[in-house]
Amino acid sequence: MFSPDETKRIAELSRAVREQRPLVHCITNYVTVNDCANALLAVGAAPVMADDSEEVEEIASLAQAVVLNIGTLNRRTLTSMVAAGQRASALGRSVVLDPVGAGASRLRTDAAWTLLREAKVSVVRGNLSEIKALTGVSTATRGVDAAEEDLRGAGLHDAIAAVKALAQQTGAVVAVTGATDVVTDGDAMYTVAVHNGHPMLPLITGSGCMLSAIIGAFCAVAPEQLPDAVAAALGMMGMAGEQAAARTEREHAGTGSFRVWLMDALSQLDAAALAGGLRLERLA
Amino acid sequence: MFSPDETKRIAELSRAVREQRPLVHCITNYVTVNDCANALLAVGAAPVMADDSEEVEEIASLAQAVVLNIGTLNRRTLTSMVAAGQRASALGRSVVLDPVGAGASRLRTDAAWTLLREAKVSVVRGNLSEIKALTGVSTATRGVDAAEEDLRGAGLHDAIAAVKALAQQTGAVVAVTGATDVVTDGDAMYTVAVHNGHPMLPLITGSGCMLSAIIGAFCAVAPEQLPDAVAAALGMMGMAGEQAAARTEREHAGTGSFRVWLMDALSQLDAAALAGGLRLERLA
Amino acid sequence: MFSPDETKRIAELSRAVREQRPLVHCITNYVTVNDCANALLAVGAAPVMADDSEEVEEIASLAQAVVLNIGTLNRRTLTSMVAAGQRASALGRSVVLDPVGAGASRLRTDAAWTLLREAKVSVVRGNLSEIKALTGVSTATRGVDAAEEDLRGAGLHDAIAAVKALAQQTGAVVAVTGATDVVTDGDAMYTVAVHNGHPMLPLITGSGCMLSAIIGAFCAVAPEQLPDAVAAALGMMGMAGEQAAARTEREHAGTGSFRVWLMDALSQLDAAALAGGLRLERLA
Repeated sequence: MFSPDETKRIAELSRAVREQRPLVHCITNYVTVNDCANALLAVGAAPVMADDSEEVEEIASLAQAVVLNIGTLNRRTLTSMVAAGQRASALGRSVVLDPVGAGASRLRTDAAWTLLREAKVSVVRGNLSEIKALTGVSTATRGVDAAEEDLRGAGLHDAIAAVKALAQQTGAVVAVTGATDVVTDGDAMYTVAVHNGHPMLPLITGSGCMLSAIIGAFCAVAPEQLPDAVAAALGMMGMAGEQAAARTEREHAGTGSFRVWLMDALSQLDAAALAGGLRLERLA
Repeated sequence: MFSPDETKRIAELSRAVREQRPLVHCITNYVTVNDCANALLAVGAAPVMADDSEEVEEIASLAQAVVLNIGTLNRRTLTSMVAAGQRASALGRSVVLDPVGAGASRLRTDAAWTLLREAKVSVVRGNLSEIKALTGVSTATRGVDAAEEDLRGAGLHDAIAAVKALAQQTGAVVAVTGATDVVTDGDAMYTVAVHNGHPMLPLITGSGCMLSAIIGAFCAVAPEQLPDAVAAALGMMGMAGEQAAARTEREHAGTGSFRVWLMDALSQLDAAALAGGLRLERLA
Repeated sequence: MFSPDETKRIAELSRAVREQRPLVHCITNYVTVNDCANALLAVGAAPVMADDSEEVEEIASLAQAVVLNIGTLNRRTLTSMVAAGQRASALGRSVVLDPVGAGASRLRTDAAWTLLREAKVSVVRGNLSEIKALTGVSTATRGVDAAEEDLRGAGLHDAIAAVKALAQQTGAVVAVTGATDVVTDGDAMYTVAVHNGHPMLPLITGSGCMLSAIIGAFCAVAPEQLPDAVAAALGMMGMAGEQAAARTEREHAGTGSFRVWLMDALSQLDAAALAGGLRLERLA
């Protein structure tokens, strides 16, 4: 596990987000876009959603990070994503890709690869089947809100292999999320497991999309230490899930209340609480 | 009223949904799409939202049911709906149509008829003015979230006539929802009134759309008994509304809390509770 | 400050909304559209969302007011907005414009001006940077959910100048919202400050969009007294924010709960409570 000092350094990135209020430009699906905007506000960032090709380059120029999410993709928004990603990377800003549903249709798998090739994607975050689909490993996908895959034991080994493979292919920082999250950098010199999280998270839509948006906020304030930024975001979402799930169980509530309390937790977690709850483990 | 045994058999369909976790492909409006995804997850199904013509056939092939909802319709998504419906019906899967706002514009009325004609729609669910608009009975509509029409007394008689007319015209199972819900099959041999529900349900947007999505989940696990599946879904949504409304009144809360507790109830209702609360009456 | 009698007269407009249940047609962004629909229902109005050029004129004809919101704008929806606005104004109905993100991209600034020129906009509601962008005063915008600008002291003076300038340029009633809201009419004979509201409101997405939708509902029932209608809507949203924030602080909750309780408050505020809490000040 990370030492207390290392953990604290990672947790402090959340303070930087609240102090700097980075503007994060999201081109994202219409299913969870409201959740993404509220999650960004909850962690202290500022969202801007814009997907038309006539304006995405201007908006991306105003923002400190761009998040591209291919849920409910179409040709019009794919063009906009390429343009926004190119502009952001030309300005040296982080570009996060959430390949929602990669593997479920050729359009999505191809779109993810188009974005990896044409926009300089800094970070990819997906679930195991999505990440595997991008590495060319065939996998059976059940859509975008399928049950959390088991990333313990053999599953964890699988996940580590998948993120390393995609990171080496693309040069991006790659994160796979599930029961355990794994993040690695392009050289696979930094591979970290994040043991925060809760099985209730996949029982609501948007937990993955919100996480990708939050990763954008953390990358915006730590562009020189992207793997740490991603780990911090994964840990913060995981801890928020733990807190919301604990309350849901205590009050015998359901998924509607869990979703509200998840947002509460995101808005109330500060760097000190994060430092006390992050469970990060260096794997390489 | 249904016998306890009949009621229990219907209620058990909710257990099948939680056990089989059917994947439900929705092409739906952007107003309530998040609610539909969360409602599907709450009852134990898995949602996938995709509306681009390049991918809807692949996605529909992965899914166990398709739900077509014409709120915020446009030509691009109508084309996708036809393709998804055709693919699903070719594979023998259920296609649910929610004709949101039929009667309010020619585009919507025509689109609903296009879908009824070109995709083999298995189930239609709407409010009374929407169903009447599709039977050619002229009606004054006030949009898609108009107050619940009175389906008691003369209204109920009206509703029964409307669902039977549309079922005979189309061969689909047809449900009209309001103060009382009525479902009938194409031969009008099975006509059931569902007496669950609460007047608070139309005070939030999305209660109808969520219901249509949930119908998709129930049809996915009971393709051979669609009228029962629809009745089970209507009853489950109705009971969830009753439970959420009771809590809202008890805690002197408003529509924001009602909406959260409705989702809680959907996620917590199990087959036993459902069997104890369903109020189904055979009308024919 | 307004006299108790004047205040009461303004507050009574909320009763007219609940009694008349005006249908409000919104062409709005996909980020907060669900919030707008629920907010309209909460204050007693009925929402209808439709954005396709084939149906917007029919839908606008059914409605008592039209709300045009340029967040996540594109060419397709801009065309629809012009058509809906023209139809509504031809029928003598109110057209509300929310110039979300004006100043952040040329597309949005130009679109707002296109709508001001081609559809007879009755009311414009934005934050200070958006309103300034429309008056041609250059301003640095940080996107659409930027922190609330300080409208106290010098900021308030600035806001008054901006709304008067835009009102005189366009003939519309113009409202700027922030720590203090200001509304003025085209002749600048009526300028009112609304001192309701709370700093938590900009910590969730959609508070501005919901407000613009609610303004549509109030204008629908008081087309002959638009400045009063706008002031009533601003005050009601502000009071709902105060109530939700008080509960959030009392229960040590976060922004997720605040958002739910804001909707609760909107649905529970009646004319009497409003009369007791509105803080309106005539500035001219």
